[in-house]
Amino acid sequence: MKKSLIALATLGAFAGAASAQSSVTLYGLVDLSVQHVKSGEDSPFAGAKTTRLSDGTAYGPGSRWGLRVSEDLGSGLKANVVLESGFGADDGRSQQSSRLFGRQAFVSLASTTLGEVRLGRQYTLHDETLSVGNPFGNTTVLNPGTYFNIGGASLANPTGAASVPLFIDNVRVDNAVQYISPSFAGFRVQGMVAAGEGTADRYQGLKGVYANGPLNVALSYEFGKRFTDDENVNKLLTLSANYDFGVVKVFAGAQRLKDPSFSAGNTLGLGSIGGATDIDKLTSYTVGASVPFGAVTVGANYSRAKYDIIGGGDETIGKFGVVGQYSLSKLTTVYAGYAQATGDAKNDVNEKRVFQVGLRKAF
Amino acid sequence: MKKSLIALATLGAFAGAASAQSSVTLYGLVDLSVQHVKSGEDSPFAGAKTTRLSDGTAYGPGSRWGLRVSEDLGSGLKANVVLESGFGADDGRSQQSSRLFGRQAFVSLASTTLGEVRLGRQYTLHDETLSVGNPFGNTTVLNPGTYFNIGGASLANPTGAASVPLFIDNVRVDNAVQYISPSFAGFRVQGMVAAGEGTADRYQGLKGVYANGPLNVALSYEFGKRFTDDENVNKLLTLSANYDFGVVKVFAGAQRLKDPSFSAGNTLGLGSIGGATDIDKLTSYTVGASVPFGAVTVGANYSRAKYDIIGGGDETIGKFGVVGQYSLSKLTTVYAGYAQATGDAKNDVNEKRVFQVGLRKAF
Amino acid sequence: MKKSLIALATLGAFAGAASAQSSVTLYGLVDLSVQHVKSGEDSPFAGAKTTRLSDGTAYGPGSRWGLRVSEDLGSGLKANVVLESGFGADDGRSQQSSRLFGRQAFVSLASTTLGEVRLGRQYTLHDETLSVGNPFGNTTVLNPGTYFNIGGASLANPTGAASVPLFIDNVRVDNAVQYISPSFAGFRVQGMVAAGEGTADRYQGLKGVYANGPLNVALSYEFGKRFTDDENVNKLLTLSANYDFGVVKVFAGAQRLKDPSFSAGNTLGLGSIGGATDIDKLTSYTVGASVPFGAVTVGANYSRAKYDIIGGGDETIGKFGVVGQYSLSKLTTVYAGYAQATGDAKNDVNEKRVFQVGLRKAF
Repeated sequence: MKKSLIALATLGAFAGAASAQSSVTLYGLVDLSVQHVKSGEDSPFAGAKTTRLSDGTAYGPGSRWGLRVSEDLGSGLKANVVLESGFGADDGRSQQSSRLFGRQAFVSLASTTLGEVRLGRQYTLHDETLSVGNPFGNTTVLNPGTYFNIGGASLANPTGAASVPLFIDNVRVDNAVQYISPSFAGFRVQGMVAAGEGTADRYQGLKGVYANGPLNVALSYEFGKRFTDDENVNKLLTLSANYDFGVVKVFAGAQRLKDPSFSAGNTLGLGSIGGATDIDKLTSYTVGASVPFGAVTVGANYSRAKYDIIGGGDETIGKFGVVGQYSLSKLTTVYAGYAQATGDAKNDVNEKRVFQVGLRKAF
Repeated sequence: MKKSLIALATLGAFAGAASAQSSVTLYGLVDLSVQHVKSGEDSPFAGAKTTRLSDGTAYGPGSRWGLRVSEDLGSGLKANVVLESGFGADDGRSQQSSRLFGRQAFVSLASTTLGEVRLGRQYTLHDETLSVGNPFGNTTVLNPGTYFNIGGASLANPTGAASVPLFIDNVRVDNAVQYISPSFAGFRVQGMVAAGEGTADRYQGLKGVYANGPLNVALSYEFGKRFTDDENVNKLLTLSANYDFGVVKVFAGAQRLKDPSFSAGNTLGLGSIGGATDIDKLTSYTVGASVPFGAVTVGANYSRAKYDIIGGGDETIGKFGVVGQYSLSKLTTVYAGYAQATGDAKNDVNEKRVFQVGLRKAF
Repeated sequence: MKKSLIALATLGAFAGAASAQSSVTLYGLVDLSVQHVKSGEDSPFAGAKTTRLSDGTAYGPGSRWGLRVSEDLGSGLKANVVLESGFGADDGRSQQSSRLFGRQAFVSLASTTLGEVRLGRQYTLHDETLSVGNPFGNTTVLNPGTYFNIGGASLANPTGAASVPLFIDNVRVDNAVQYISPSFAGFRVQGMVAAGEGTADRYQGLKGVYANGPLNVALSYEFGKRFTDDENVNKLLTLSANYDFGVVKVFAGAQRLKDPSFSAGNTLGLGSIGGATDIDKLTSYTVGASVPFGAVTVGANYSRAKYDIIGGGDETIGKFGVVGQYSLSKLTTVYAGYAQATGDAKNDVNEKRVFQVGLRKAF
């Protein structure tokens, strides 16, 4: 969704000297959808329905504007900056807990032979991995990384709700240093560490990507070093793939969380799973497909999570969804989708059934 | 004030394909005025005076920067985005309750034959209507939509004050879907609905505009569907007009509020009127004129509101003002103005007399 | 650091007329450094160490993006706007207490013969003066205007800590009106007043600058008119100079604070000095030098403050630091530095020893 645009070529204007040049790209995307939500019969909203105009956290790619800066330093070396600001076009507010550049903010040095080092606020490795495994990436009601909720201020406003994840997706992390290798025959590795700075667990992760022709595979492993006791917790393994047969593109993904820690400052940003913290393990999978018909693309997927409860037993939540997108141009899309909860907890969640129809414009 | 500027022509930069194009316009305005305020003798500040450097809420057009995006989709169809960020240049803070794009944030599809549909945070219909009825639009001490206040943190900072409106002007609304018809012989209609999402009243409104040659007329009717009991409340009828005779431009406006609701989430954003909620009806009018002398324009107006009190009786508040503007260019203006409260409540309000001298630069 | 860049030439697009033109420059800088901090043995963190990724308040120039607007009005007159937004690239949050344009926000009229008048949020005169007196301006661990701290949420997060200034540096002020004279033979004067608006002391200051060939000198005097009792307090005298011998550039500065006031709304933004308010006088000095070796510049300085305690006695804090910078281009720099506290309070502060290695990219 973060399509690069133009670009004022910029000239360093120093006193009497102007040899350095950076390109600056101003880009963005605005996406809003009208959503109709029906809550589960056993949820706090007892089957109530609501209509909302929604952006961002609920099934959207998240509206944003940003600056992408690049400077060629010669010898295959570049200096880059990405500043990406997330906001809700429904109310004009900054997203990501009121951050200005809450989506991404980093500076990097990138060498064609040695790879790239990035400093700043960045996507987590599992979030990048997840986008490979579902149609339309991490957007629309198909996104298995958008959590179900139980309770909250209102059916349209899940603030304060207990979140019920299908796939764990703590999208970004602060204070991160990342290394990205060059690509060899479609294969590259990434490693990232984020300082806990004495108030959060230290994030540590590795990722491998293979992208060659019709096949895309991504695998990540991450964990947190808990700042209170130096224990390794929240061990998260995520695998995703897609294959483009031309007439159909198929998607699959799986995730496993072990040794979950719900204490403050954990690397997953989770206070509980559906209100419970007696979870031993989370195992999720998703399968999906998309089919292009000219300017129209239809996609569908099914995702399911199982929470193993400490002391025995388990609980499941799932989602089936279908979405159609119509491209008015490379940059403008209208779409409609429907998703329905499945599994043990399907009647407990706010979002038992969701219908959305939306408009998306990139620039 | 939101003059369109330039514009980087942007190119969609997708993998191998680059046919789509959007134009992106970066624009803005900064306006600051030194204001000297004398409080009413019976106000909590008992006739005290203060000097402040002021932006935004107090008689300014409100400093802003924004992005205007447009893409021609062919066949008379366009996709548009407007993102407009309001801030106070006196302290650098975001306005509109700390929103990033608090002034406007919407995406739209616009057809030359079928009209336009806009999704997002937008101006209310009565705010647009009001700007037709007073010299210099909704800016300077002449703006009848800037509320008087009683109390607050300090004379210069009315936070927490009881507001005393002359004309009701709740400038913007979240979660709105608007339809704007094409213009036929200078006439167009607009309809807007904003979802209350279970925590606010649903906003509903209609507006008609006639703009042809020297005559401009706007008429809007809006009301809220109260979310707690589905009652129709805050029925607001607003009419404004101006006529340009060349040597003088005359302005007039009137507004009537019936069935006011001051409960949380109301569509007018009002907690009371001057501390009271036993109001039955509000009736306001304004008359004004402006006269150009080359680069100088002088404008004056008189506005008056009457609050009918439940059980009988009424209270009035009014304002007389005069402003002179000198245009250094199409984009840069210096101005000075004076306004004085009139009516029953004139000695109760913070802003009994206001003098302002300011500088405004658009880009 | 605020290097001017490009610039879309903008055209005022009014109904039928488009003669006015403004140039708009989009610029910015992102700087992040990995810092290793060792606390003093007698500080609340008792000699503990931490590693953090840091931006802004701690030894950085502060990441920013901004807009610089200029319009030529003819006859040597220009209208200008500067909007500069500070953020932390480590977490994407707005800096300067969550302001959008917290670094600078002003509109000005500037005449080549009469000087410039600026309205808005601006740098204080002593902050500008300080940057003349230390290598690399007010950046890196050498900056004597970055306060030591005692306590706070964590060693990496001094929020809520008692600040221990070396040089007083309250960087910016709201609601300011500034006059800047034209430059005569390298000499200019500046005068600034900032309205307290009934909730803060009124800021008043004067500054003289001499910049000619290898010599730069700046001298400022400021004080606050306390809003509660109209007393003149916080009298701050600051003097800085540098001289460029070519092979070496030498720096020196001194500052004296008399009649300190720590009450709310004071012009220095100080609640105490290291937790104490029984301070009579603060006297500081700094000396430093930088030496260029091609693309590398090495700088070092020593700074020291003495707080005179009411009733007799004094306390000292100092800092010695050394920094090396390597310029990959005019716009991109990598650097490393080390600083160590000295003086009576050296074991009491959070930042007894700091090592930093960072990357900075301007655009």
